[in-house]
Amino acid sequence: MQENAPSVQEAVERGLAIVLRQSVRIQGAGRTDAGVHALGQVASFEAETDIHPDRLRRGVTALVRPEISIVDAAVAPAGFNARFDSIGKHYRYQIVSRRTHSPLRRHTSYFVPQRLQVERMREAAAALLGDHDFAGFRASDCGRPRTDCTLREVKITGDDRGYLEIDVKGIAFLKNMVRIIVGTLLEVGKGRFSPDIIGKLFESGDRRMAGPTVPAHGLTLVEVFYPEGWIRSRT
Amino acid sequence: MQENAPSVQEAVERGLAIVLRQSVRIQGAGRTDAGVHALGQVASFEAETDIHPDRLRRGVTALVRPEISIVDAAVAPAGFNARFDSIGKHYRYQIVSRRTHSPLRRHTSYFVPQRLQVERMREAAAALLGDHDFAGFRASDCGRPRTDCTLREVKITGDDRGYLEIDVKGIAFLKNMVRIIVGTLLEVGKGRFSPDIIGKLFESGDRRMAGPTVPAHGLTLVEVFYPEGWIRSRT
Repeated sequence: MQENAPSVQEAVERGLAIVLRQSVRIQGAGRTDAGVHALGQVASFEAETDIHPDRLRRGVTALVRPEISIVDAAVAPAGFNARFDSIGKHYRYQIVSRRTHSPLRRHTSYFVPQRLQVERMREAAAALLGDHDFAGFRASDCGRPRTDCTLREVKITGDDRGYLEIDVKGIAFLKNMVRIIVGTLLEVGKGRFSPDIIGKLFESGDRRMAGPTVPAHGLTLVEVFYPEGWIRSRT
Repeated sequence: MQENAPSVQEAVERGLAIVLRQSVRIQGAGRTDAGVHALGQVASFEAETDIHPDRLRRGVTALVRPEISIVDAAVAPAGFNARFDSIGKHYRYQIVSRRTHSPLRRHTSYFVPQRLQVERMREAAAALLGDHDFAGFRASDCGRPRTDCTLREVKITGDDRGYLEIDVKGIAFLKNMVRIIVGTLLEVGKGRFSPDIIGKLFESGDRRMAGPTVPAHGLTLVEVFYPEGWIRSRT
């Protein structure tokens, strides 16, 4: 739900209400800021109905805007909640790092008009792995009481055309955490920060020492993880 | 130049006129139908100027819409013509083949709501290679006097999420040729045509026997080839 813009949640709930003939409230696996894309967002709801999940999927997809696609629908274990039962998420941040922007990627990638020192960024990325206090990597209005998080993977993939992808997998995320991590890695790649900035930020917890929050449009929620045998996030 | 829509050529010529302080007419390597994308289109023009190509590149990019990016600019050998000196082109057609469309790819991929038999498509694609009469694979209003063309590569790449890419490299192309080739390969992938349709189409030259012309928005001109040491198409 966004206050001043049509949201995906609103559209899906309206579609579900028509197909199910009852109003339901869906619970997304995680809120994404306005402008962030999703390939494998997962949402759950409770309803009594005889409608087959696949008919529901097709019906809702037909009713929503083309910006939304219901990739899969399934009956979940009783009491399942897409948000609270999630055990991790995979985000991807896409960057175009070259002299000129890329028209075909301009809605899904952040344009950085210079070459980046990717090996330095990888060195900094390695320091992010594991359990740490990410207080230095969250928006000032993040309301989460605990700031310790666990990152399982921070992978930087680049090609010779300047297309860069930063894949981040972790258990829990603070508000804007991935975008501040990427903003900090970019400062390392530009040579402005040393790779040891990560360790210093874990120590100080001082958001002002980190890089800027990079724009939302480069970020995609790729997948949401659940325990084996439960719901599977499809992209 | 498009009759009823703002064209890339028009925008680039307007930008060049401002930076060069003289009006020039650019020659693109090949016309692309409305809706077709380009990563590595090449255009040439003649002008007397002291302006460094890189300043030209930056100036024009700043003046045109964000849908356009001048990736490189260089002084060409005397008499160079982007269209007539081209020795080949690389096109890519992108398909999303699964139950539901992909919102993030909907402007650059054609949505086919079923699984395709990719191995059958590859068998048909192999028959396209080499020198053939492609009269059966061109738009009825194609004005090119000769219909023999040479294809060097027709590569089909798929992944388990239903994203399919068909890369076509060749020396010359007839109007809508790539889109009719893809439309025909898709009929093979759906099981409606046998892979030997390709040979039959070369024999008959009958456009009505081929598959439909798939939509323009799935097609991208990836690269234009020139003789070694000349201009290089950048993407």
